[in-house]
Amino acid sequence: MKFSLLLTHTTRGNPSEADTPSHRYMLRSGMVMQIASGIYTYLPLGWRALKKIEAIIREEIEMAGGQEVRMPVLQPVELWEETGRNLAFGDTLFSLKDRRGRGMILAPTHEEVLSQIGKAYVQSYRDMPIIIYQIQTKFRDELRPRAGLIRVREFDMKDAYSLDVDEKALDDNYQRMALAYRNIYKRCGLPAIMVEADSGAIGGKESHEFILPAATGEDTIIICSNCEYAANLEKALSNYPKLPESESFLREEIYTPGVSNISALQRFLKVDHKQILKSIVYVADGEIVAVVIRGDLKVNEAKLGNILMAKHLRFANSDEIRSAGLIPGFISPVGAADIRWVGDNSIEHGRNYVAGGNKADLHFRNINFPRDFTIEQLVDIAEVNEEGLCVICNSPLQSLKGIEIGHIFKLGTFFSEKLGVNFLDQAGQSQPVIMGCYGIGIGRLLAAAIEQNHDEKGIVFPVTIAPYSVHLVGLNLDDEDVMNSADYLYRSLWEDGTECLFDDRIAETAGVKFNDADLMGIPIRVIVSKRSIANGTCEIKFRSGSDSNPVSLTQATAFIKQSLETID
Amino acid sequence: MKFSLLLTHTTRGNPSEADTPSHRYMLRSGMVMQIASGIYTYLPLGWRALKKIEAIIREEIEMAGGQEVRMPVLQPVELWEETGRNLAFGDTLFSLKDRRGRGMILAPTHEEVLSQIGKAYVQSYRDMPIIIYQIQTKFRDELRPRAGLIRVREFDMKDAYSLDVDEKALDDNYQRMALAYRNIYKRCGLPAIMVEADSGAIGGKESHEFILPAATGEDTIIICSNCEYAANLEKALSNYPKLPESESFLREEIYTPGVSNISALQRFLKVDHKQILKSIVYVADGEIVAVVIRGDLKVNEAKLGNILMAKHLRFANSDEIRSAGLIPGFISPVGAADIRWVGDNSIEHGRNYVAGGNKADLHFRNINFPRDFTIEQLVDIAEVNEEGLCVICNSPLQSLKGIEIGHIFKLGTFFSEKLGVNFLDQAGQSQPVIMGCYGIGIGRLLAAAIEQNHDEKGIVFPVTIAPYSVHLVGLNLDDEDVMNSADYLYRSLWEDGTECLFDDRIAETAGVKFNDADLMGIPIRVIVSKRSIANGTCEIKFRSGSDSNPVSLTQATAFIKQSLETID
Repeated sequence: MKFSLLLTHTTRGNPSEADTPSHRYMLRSGMVMQIASGIYTYLPLGWRALKKIEAIIREEIEMAGGQEVRMPVLQPVELWEETGRNLAFGDTLFSLKDRRGRGMILAPTHEEVLSQIGKAYVQSYRDMPIIIYQIQTKFRDELRPRAGLIRVREFDMKDAYSLDVDEKALDDNYQRMALAYRNIYKRCGLPAIMVEADSGAIGGKESHEFILPAATGEDTIIICSNCEYAANLEKALSNYPKLPESESFLREEIYTPGVSNISALQRFLKVDHKQILKSIVYVADGEIVAVVIRGDLKVNEAKLGNILMAKHLRFANSDEIRSAGLIPGFISPVGAADIRWVGDNSIEHGRNYVAGGNKADLHFRNINFPRDFTIEQLVDIAEVNEEGLCVICNSPLQSLKGIEIGHIFKLGTFFSEKLGVNFLDQAGQSQPVIMGCYGIGIGRLLAAAIEQNHDEKGIVFPVTIAPYSVHLVGLNLDDEDVMNSADYLYRSLWEDGTECLFDDRIAETAGVKFNDADLMGIPIRVIVSKRSIANGTCEIKFRSGSDSNPVSLTQATAFIKQSLETID
Repeated sequence: MKFSLLLTHTTRGNPSEADTPSHRYMLRSGMVMQIASGIYTYLPLGWRALKKIEAIIREEIEMAGGQEVRMPVLQPVELWEETGRNLAFGDTLFSLKDRRGRGMILAPTHEEVLSQIGKAYVQSYRDMPIIIYQIQTKFRDELRPRAGLIRVREFDMKDAYSLDVDEKALDDNYQRMALAYRNIYKRCGLPAIMVEADSGAIGGKESHEFILPAATGEDTIIICSNCEYAANLEKALSNYPKLPESESFLREEIYTPGVSNISALQRFLKVDHKQILKSIVYVADGEIVAVVIRGDLKVNEAKLGNILMAKHLRFANSDEIRSAGLIPGFISPVGAADIRWVGDNSIEHGRNYVAGGNKADLHFRNINFPRDFTIEQLVDIAEVNEEGLCVICNSPLQSLKGIEIGHIFKLGTFFSEKLGVNFLDQAGQSQPVIMGCYGIGIGRLLAAAIEQNHDEKGIVFPVTIAPYSVHLVGLNLDDEDVMNSADYLYRSLWEDGTECLFDDRIAETAGVKFNDADLMGIPIRVIVSKRSIANGTCEIKFRSGSDSNPVSLTQATAFIKQSLETID
C-alpha cells in the first residue's frame, strides 16, 4: 500500500477525548474513528491489525478442535427470558421491538443460541466432545464506555463453547482451550497472565481470566512472587502474616467522644489499624447484613456478594443502620442487636482488638473473638493486599494492574438445564450437557497490545499483529533515481511476501514522515534517500530499537525477512 | 474434517417451512438453522461456503483498489435524519433507544457513516479516486422474509463506496467495480447477467443489477435475443412492432351496458386488446393521476412512480375515482374532467381505439390521439413484454426469472450534499464529492448459487464455493485395511492442500452415505471400499456427472487436484 493512497490522516495534537495511550495513538494514526459513544469505525490500518489477530485466533481455536459457526445478533427476547439473563444483563442489554411488535435483543453473548444449536445437533454422547466457536459482533450498552476500544458498546469477540458428557471431559476441553489462549497471546507477542477469576453474573462455577499487565488497566491481579499462584483481586486468597502472640486481656470501656471513624480512632488511641475491628453494615437484596473485619483490611464486595448469594449489595444508610439497632460510628458485634453478622477470617488473627461500643461515644478495648461476641459465619471476605502471603507457598504476594483480554468459564449445566440441552448417554439415559464458554474481545486485545507496547512517540507493534511489517520511507522522491530505488524495494518486499507500507508522499518533509512512522509503530522502518542510494543502500531501523544500519538495496528484502522472524 | 465430528445432522424429509430448493437443501444438509423469522445461524458447512465467497469477493475488490474498513451496526438516528433515509426505509429500519434514551438504528446500509469517514479523511482532490469497502452484517426488518437466505432480516453484505472528483472519474470507478463484480460471479461459477436497473429509494441516477437466472427468482429481466441489451423489468424499454397503417375514422358512441372491464369489452366488441385504450386512476402521494395505455400493455409502476416522483403510489378506490368526476368501468381521457392525465407512448402506436365514454354503459370507437383527447405528458410507463423489440437493435426480447445478487449505483452528490462531504479541487474550490455504491448480499449469493445448481437429490456446488472439494466416503470401515486406506487418502488430500470431508461413520449404510453426499453437493466424491482396495483403487465420481471411475489409491490425490482445476 502506498501512503498517498491509504485512507488515513495522521494528526499531531492529542485528541481531548482520549486519556489512554492506545486510544490516543489509534485516533492519531487513523486506525479508528468514533461514530458514537463507545461505537467505532475501523479504518484500514486498524482493521488490518484486527484481521491479523483474528487469523491467529482462528488458527489456534481450530487447532484445539473448534468448528466455526456464525450465530445471529438479533435474537428473540423469549430465549433470554428462559435463562433469566435478560434481567441479569439489565440495562446493558440493547433491546427493540420488530415491526410486528416482537421483542428482540442484540446479543451481548451467545450461550442461549448456542444452546439451541446444541439441542438440535448434539443429541448423543457420540456427538461430544465438541467445541463450537464464532467471531461475531457483540452489543453491550455499557454505562461508561471508556479508553477507546477497551470498553465499547459494539465489539468483535471470539466466543467459543464446549459441550461435554461429564466434568472430566469438560476439564479436558477447558485445558485445551486454556492452552489455545496461551498460544494466541504468545503469538500476538503479549505476555498475558492466566488468573483465577470470579464467574460473576454468567453463572458458572470456575473461571479464569487472562490479564495483560498495563499501567492503565482497570483490573488488579494478585500474583505470587515465588510460585504460579495468580488470581483476580475479586477472587484472590491470602494467608496472614503471623502477629506477635499475646494473652487475652480484660475488656475495657473507653470514652471516645465524636470519634466515629477508624482513622480518628487510630489517632485518638494511638493504635495500629491492625488492632481495630471494623464493622460495616450492608443491604444485600433488601436484607441488613453486618460485617466485621480487621481494621487494616478492605471488604471485597465480590467475595461478600458471592457468600451472601446477593444480586444487589450496597452500604446501608444511617437510617437503616439505626433501624437495625446500631449506632453509626460506633457499630460493633459486641452486644449488638439481633441481626445477621458475618466475620472475616482476619478477626481470628489477632488479640485484644479495639471495637465499637454500640453506644454513642463508646468503644471497647481488649475485644477477643469468640470470647466477646458471636457471628453467624466466619469466612474470607477480605481483599488481598501486598501484605498477604501466598496460600500455596506462603511467599510474598504482589499486585499488578492489567487489562482483561480473555475469560474462560466452566458453565456446567446452568444453560443446559434451563434450556433443555440434553443428550443420551451410553446407557440410553437423558443427561444435561456440560458446557464451558471461552471469550476474547478482539478490539480490546488490539488496544491492550498498544497499552503495553508504546513509547512517547507512538505505537510499537508486535510483529505478528502489525498492520504492515515494513514502513518504507522514501526521501527526496522528486529525484527519479530515489523513486525508482524505493519502488524497486517496495515491489521486491511484496513479491517476497512481506507486507510493506510505502510512504511515497513527495510533498512531506523527512520529519513528518519519521513522526508518522513512529506513531504508526510498524516494526521495521526502511529509509531510501538520495544519500543512501549513492552507496547502493537503504537504512534499516527497528521501531523497538534505536540503531539504524545500512543494508545494500539488493540484500534488504532477504535481511528484512530474516529480521521479522527473529525480532520480538 | 471427519463426518463423525462435524456439527451437522442431515435430514431426509423436506422441512415444511421451505418452499425453494436452496432453503430446503441448506436446512436438510445442516448448513443453516433458523433462529427467528428471517434470522439464521450458519453451521460449519454453510459458514465454510460463505467464507469462500467472502474470500473471492475480498480479492477482487482489493484488486479493483478497494480498501477494507469496518463500520458499525449501531448508528445515531440523527445521522439518518439528516439524509431523510430513516423515513425512506420506514418500518424496514430496526431502531431502538439506548440506556440514555438516545435513538439508534441498526444499519441497513452504510452510506451515512461512509460519508462521515469521507468528511474526515477525504479532503482534497489528491485523496481521490478511492474505493472503500467492508463486509458487514446488515439489518432490515423485511415485511416478508422468504426462501431461506434469499430474503432475510440479518445478513452479511459486501458494500463498497467510491469517492471521486467528477462524473468522469465516477464512471471509471463504476466500470472498475462492474468488472470486479463480473470476476466475482465468474470465479463463483455463476453466470450472472448485468442489467440496467431502477435506482429505487437509494436516490441515485444510474444503477445496474446482477441477476442470476433461476426459476424461483423474484426478479424478471428483459434481454435482447441478439445484442447485449439487458434490463430489469422495472427499467426495461422496448420498441413496438409496427401495426398495420390505417386512416382515422370518425368517432362513434357505443352502448355497452354493464361492460366495465377490458376483457368483457374485448368479448363484447370482438376487438383485440391492442385496439383498446385502458385508463387507470392512481393516487400518487395523495394526488389523483389518471393514466392511459394501450390495452395489451401493463403499467410499470416503478416507471410511473419515477415519472411522477411519487413516494407512495396506489390504485384509486371507487369513491376517489368518482370524486375526480370519472365513472368506474368507463374511465377515459376523452372528454374527461380536469385532472392530471399521463399517457403511455403506446397510445400513439395505433389508430381508431376503443375507449371509455366517461358515462355509465358508454364507450367510444375510433378514438385517435391527439385528435380526440389531450394529456399532460406522453411518456414510457409500459412494462416490457416478449412482444417488444430491442431499443438498440430491434430484435425480439426475452424475459427471464432470476435472483438479484448484486446492485451497483451511481449516487452522484445525493449524500455528499446532504451531509457536507466536500473536497478542495485543484483550484482550491470546495466541491461535493461524487459517490457510487456497490453491494453484494453474500448469504443470498450462496442461496442463489444453490437455486441455480441443484438436482432432485441435493446441491451441486460450483467448485470454488463448495465447503469442501472432496467428499470421501468410506464403506466397510470396520475392516481395518479399508479404514487405513481411506485414512491414508484423507491425509494425503489435506497434505496436498485439497479440502476433504471424510465420511468415517462406521454404523451408517452405503445408501445413507451416498444420499448425504448427494445432498451436500461437494464436487468430487471418492469411495473407498473393501472391493475397491482389493484392486488398489478408489472410485471417483463428480457430483455433476454420473460416471464413476476407478483410480489407483496412490494416484488419486494428484488426479483429484487436476480435476478440480478443470471441472466447472
